[in-house]
Amino acid sequence: MTAAGEEIYQLVERLYPLCRSITGDGVRATLKIVDEYVPLQVHEVPTGTRVLDWTVPQEWNIRDAYIADAAGNRVVDFAASNLHVLGYSVPVAATMPLDELRGHLHTLPEHPSWVPYRTSYYQPEWGFCLAQETLDAMPDGEYQVRIDSTLADGHLTYAEHVVPGQVADEVIVSCHVCHPSLANDNVAGIAVATYLARSLAERTPWYTYRFLFAPGTIGAITWLARNADRVNGASPAPGAPPGRRPGEEPRAGGRVRHGLVLACAGDPGQLTYKQSRRGDAEIDRVMRHVLLASDRPHRVAEFTPYGYDERQFCSPGFDLGVGSLSRTPYAGYPEYHTSADDLAFVSPEALADTLAVCLEAFSVLDRNRRYVNLSPYGEPQLGRRGLYESLGGRSDAKQAQMAMLWVLSLSDGEHSLLDVAQRSGLPFDTVADAADALHGAGLIKA
Amino acid sequence: MTAAGEEIYQLVERLYPLCRSITGDGVRATLKIVDEYVPLQVHEVPTGTRVLDWTVPQEWNIRDAYIADAAGNRVVDFAASNLHVLGYSVPVAATMPLDELRGHLHTLPEHPSWVPYRTSYYQPEWGFCLAQETLDAMPDGEYQVRIDSTLADGHLTYAEHVVPGQVADEVIVSCHVCHPSLANDNVAGIAVATYLARSLAERTPWYTYRFLFAPGTIGAITWLARNADRVNGASPAPGAPPGRRPGEEPRAGGRVRHGLVLACAGDPGQLTYKQSRRGDAEIDRVMRHVLLASDRPHRVAEFTPYGYDERQFCSPGFDLGVGSLSRTPYAGYPEYHTSADDLAFVSPEALADTLAVCLEAFSVLDRNRRYVNLSPYGEPQLGRRGLYESLGGRSDAKQAQMAMLWVLSLSDGEHSLLDVAQRSGLPFDTVADAADALHGAGLIKA
Amino acid sequence: MTAAGEEIYQLVERLYPLCRSITGDGVRATLKIVDEYVPLQVHEVPTGTRVLDWTVPQEWNIRDAYIADAAGNRVVDFAASNLHVLGYSVPVAATMPLDELRGHLHTLPEHPSWVPYRTSYYQPEWGFCLAQETLDAMPDGEYQVRIDSTLADGHLTYAEHVVPGQVADEVIVSCHVCHPSLANDNVAGIAVATYLARSLAERTPWYTYRFLFAPGTIGAITWLARNADRVNGASPAPGAPPGRRPGEEPRAGGRVRHGLVLACAGDPGQLTYKQSRRGDAEIDRVMRHVLLASDRPHRVAEFTPYGYDERQFCSPGFDLGVGSLSRTPYAGYPEYHTSADDLAFVSPEALADTLAVCLEAFSVLDRNRRYVNLSPYGEPQLGRRGLYESLGGRSDAKQAQMAMLWVLSLSDGEHSLLDVAQRSGLPFDTVADAADALHGAGLIKA
Repeated sequence: MTAAGEEIYQLVERLYPLCRSITGDGVRATLKIVDEYVPLQVHEVPTGTRVLDWTVPQEWNIRDAYIADAAGNRVVDFAASNLHVLGYSVPVAATMPLDELRGHLHTLPEHPSWVPYRTSYYQPEWGFCLAQETLDAMPDGEYQVRIDSTLADGHLTYAEHVVPGQVADEVIVSCHVCHPSLANDNVAGIAVATYLARSLAERTPWYTYRFLFAPGTIGAITWLARNADRVNGASPAPGAPPGRRPGEEPRAGGRVRHGLVLACAGDPGQLTYKQSRRGDAEIDRVMRHVLLASDRPHRVAEFTPYGYDERQFCSPGFDLGVGSLSRTPYAGYPEYHTSADDLAFVSPEALADTLAVCLEAFSVLDRNRRYVNLSPYGEPQLGRRGLYESLGGRSDAKQAQMAMLWVLSLSDGEHSLLDVAQRSGLPFDTVADAADALHGAGLIKA
Repeated sequence: MTAAGEEIYQLVERLYPLCRSITGDGVRATLKIVDEYVPLQVHEVPTGTRVLDWTVPQEWNIRDAYIADAAGNRVVDFAASNLHVLGYSVPVAATMPLDELRGHLHTLPEHPSWVPYRTSYYQPEWGFCLAQETLDAMPDGEYQVRIDSTLADGHLTYAEHVVPGQVADEVIVSCHVCHPSLANDNVAGIAVATYLARSLAERTPWYTYRFLFAPGTIGAITWLARNADRVNGASPAPGAPPGRRPGEEPRAGGRVRHGLVLACAGDPGQLTYKQSRRGDAEIDRVMRHVLLASDRPHRVAEFTPYGYDERQFCSPGFDLGVGSLSRTPYAGYPEYHTSADDLAFVSPEALADTLAVCLEAFSVLDRNRRYVNLSPYGEPQLGRRGLYESLGGRSDAKQAQMAMLWVLSLSDGEHSLLDVAQRSGLPFDTVADAADALHGAGLIKA
Repeated sequence: MTAAGEEIYQLVERLYPLCRSITGDGVRATLKIVDEYVPLQVHEVPTGTRVLDWTVPQEWNIRDAYIADAAGNRVVDFAASNLHVLGYSVPVAATMPLDELRGHLHTLPEHPSWVPYRTSYYQPEWGFCLAQETLDAMPDGEYQVRIDSTLADGHLTYAEHVVPGQVADEVIVSCHVCHPSLANDNVAGIAVATYLARSLAERTPWYTYRFLFAPGTIGAITWLARNADRVNGASPAPGAPPGRRPGEEPRAGGRVRHGLVLACAGDPGQLTYKQSRRGDAEIDRVMRHVLLASDRPHRVAEFTPYGYDERQFCSPGFDLGVGSLSRTPYAGYPEYHTSADDLAFVSPEALADTLAVCLEAFSVLDRNRRYVNLSPYGEPQLGRRGLYESLGGRSDAKQAQMAMLWVLSLSDGEHSLLDVAQRSGLPFDTVADAADALHGAGLIKA
């Protein structure tokens, strides 16, 4: 995994410097790099498009911005850090005394050397973010302020990458791509999602996995507006996911059955899984199980309607089984939304660990089925079918035999393999292997 | 609240001396005083009337009673305390030796200076209650005993006071008026109920509040027998209470949706809420929430089919959502049903505290609704509707914004505002205010 | 109970020496002895009969077996202990060096003086079990091995004893009769079941109790295969069991409503109740209640699909409410399946205690009903019906009165008397007595 961590970290390093926002060329540049790793389908949605209760805003681009002193020295410079400009600042070119300028300056007095990250998407505004130390060192007097930005009709950009599965039903993995140079929030999420897609492609998963790289809030809302057939009525019936018959093509109209929002994926903190609004969706049970079974220190958080794009996926009209995986959750660390969320704040180990948990969870999700015991009256004679012998070489032969008995006992169409694992206390993979053996012997059916 | 406590205490002082029983002039005198504070509709139900499984008994009145020694000195005198006579004693005028008299005497050997309170409503009997000390001081010899009471066809008396609400559906508040000079049980309950009615009238509550002043057991049974249309099928559907349309008159046939029995409302102990038989009725959830949120030390007790008139309201045929609020519950203090339950045992502070909790609980009950989010697909854009700005001046702006998101998230017709408050951990009033704002913006409907 | 314990122990002593297996004359001899205590209906099912997923195997009988050294001395002798022969050993008569013989020898190195118990029912095999000490003392050289057994078409033998109840619906009590000289597992279970049947017959129970004496696994499977009408669709509706009208014969087609598997019933450990697969079957609730209420130290175990014949009764097609009662559960003690599970390992006190708990549990099961309050609007007037007076002589008059109020309160057709006992905290018998009194007064109906 260390090698994987290093690779993900290198992608973080490439993406970190770009100036992203909810629209604009920074998002496009980001998606272009990701496309080198996994091919993306990029969507451009015109300004003014109605999406659910919202409207796609004007596109914002910025070329340069600074505050210069009387001598023409740039005391705050966009070229040094894209955090220096209030996101979505309208253009400005003016000279004004410091006192007038102060109303447009944002600092973090409690962390005087850090630059905060601020935006004003829906209120026309301009501003600069800077270190308190920098401000303190600025003498009174006239300053030249310049923001060379454009706010104009254009597009909102987002992208998708699909890993085809054995069934058309989908797991959506979403990460926001709208934050500028903040390494953990959310370059790390983008990079982990990218490598997750690559890893899943190697194993031909059961579900179809759809990766969504989109700006926060408005991006998810845009995607939801354009994919109504994929998400309406998406709550899975409490039965097994519909499987594909041999030789059958995946259904065109797959629906989103499960999902995960990835954010803050690379900091040194322990993993935090935030449950879906439902709290007992299958993804919730799987994530809780995997985190617990892996003996990782971790935290499971209740759903709240604040956070990342789970807010949109879990809004009551959709109510999808979408949770959110972070390390330290948003606003839970002092570096959050500041220049201190930099490349030093994320590590290859943390990135690799987040990726590993996702892969473990999706492995469980992909194998989690409900079976029906076809020989439910008394125990079937396992010995006659060679099922005891099949355990001969295994070091966990006793566990494997118990797993068979448990799968037979609970396969009444009500219990999933995860239910079996949890009730029996056996490892999920042992249970799933037992189900495969019983299925092969014709004793259970999906 | 101190002023309120003093006023309630003064009413306790006025009501305390009267000799009440389950029928008779003491009840009428009590209701006459209460009527000075809130207008009462007084009902007189004739002896012999069949009420559910019971029959209204004969009316009991008493003028005088005593035990006099050979010298004619009254050693036990009804004029000194109405507790001295066994309630519902048949008349007697006789002279007998102490040994014969003893069979009619009731004392509390473990509290030798206290007089017990005893009754015999349904077995014809006569008797005296006295201090053990008094009995110990009575020499052998002849005693003159006299109870100048009448047991005759008459009436059972109870009263109602209604505070009209915005809807016809009702909350019933009931207190027993059958105990003689026992301050906590239940002059305090009568007095708190009286002031509660006055306070509710000042705020035009959502529900119609019906106050019932009636003798224990037989009074509640009589009321239930005469109000079948108000209580049968009274279990609220698990939806919002039906609201009144603008310009619409309250429905004539309001039903009892919730209720509270008030007893032992003035002693120094902490508050005790005894849940309805259902245990999860809305009144149960509201009372638990309010007591917990108020940080008062308190106790929540399971329903038992013993106690006060919740026994009748919660009998399985009615199974109303009626709980009971006391301070120290019945039989939970040594002074219970003795002369030590006197004016010194109740305090203005305790009376005011009981009143305050009732008002808080009814405020929550009145505001507790289920809403449906009319924009449930993704989050609606709050900023566009000025809902963020509306929070500008509030010190709890962040909480108020979270409350809006929570109300939107959970307003699926299933969750009440109390559910929202409990799941979010936000104060109920903040949640209800957010619902009002969202309702005003047309984003949710009741 | 000591006398009972001694009697049960004497039966254990009689049954202990017999060489039982899943078929054969040892089972027949066992049933012949049991038949002296309770009359048995013995069933003989021919080899080759298909039973559910299984087939009745050939019958095994054994007359003699030994390993003799070169001098002709028997170093291992079936006559000394029937554990010495691998159960279901095919016949053998040969001479071979110790090294070749070793592949057929089973010992317990960690308990060098104990003889293990081993079988090979479905793989043709021969072998001897012996103490490690014995093996260590055997010099290299030639040994004469001889097993005078027959494996031939014959029968599988099992027996039933029925204690008729007031209703045809049944409680099944099952114990396995296939183990040779192992006192706790399961001569003790057979002996306790025998005396349980005798004790139940003395009280004319509510349910019909069917005792099953059958070999493990294949015996239960055979019984289930032959009694499909008695067990299919056997899950009781959540109402009262159908009662017999006066003068009405028990229904012919009684169904199994509840059951208990008895095993390991005589060791010194505390009682263990293993719940049915359902976990909330009535037998589960009754056993938990009785064990808890009796203040015995005990353990309640979750269902697992491993153990004794509850595996078959609880297989998902039947899913019967059948639990299992043991003292120390199988494989939970070092003596398990060894020669150390001998007569010294079980005691009269333990046997009597297991019997007592069964009788207490069946007493609760037999009295556990759901009633409907016929006077559910308000409390009925108990005094008028003499129900208070009926309590006059009881030391638990207050409890008995509370029990009446609780039965009235919860008798809505939903709650059983066990529910009433558990919610009220009153003893089950007090609650059941109250129900009898109320039923006698016509206030409730079954």
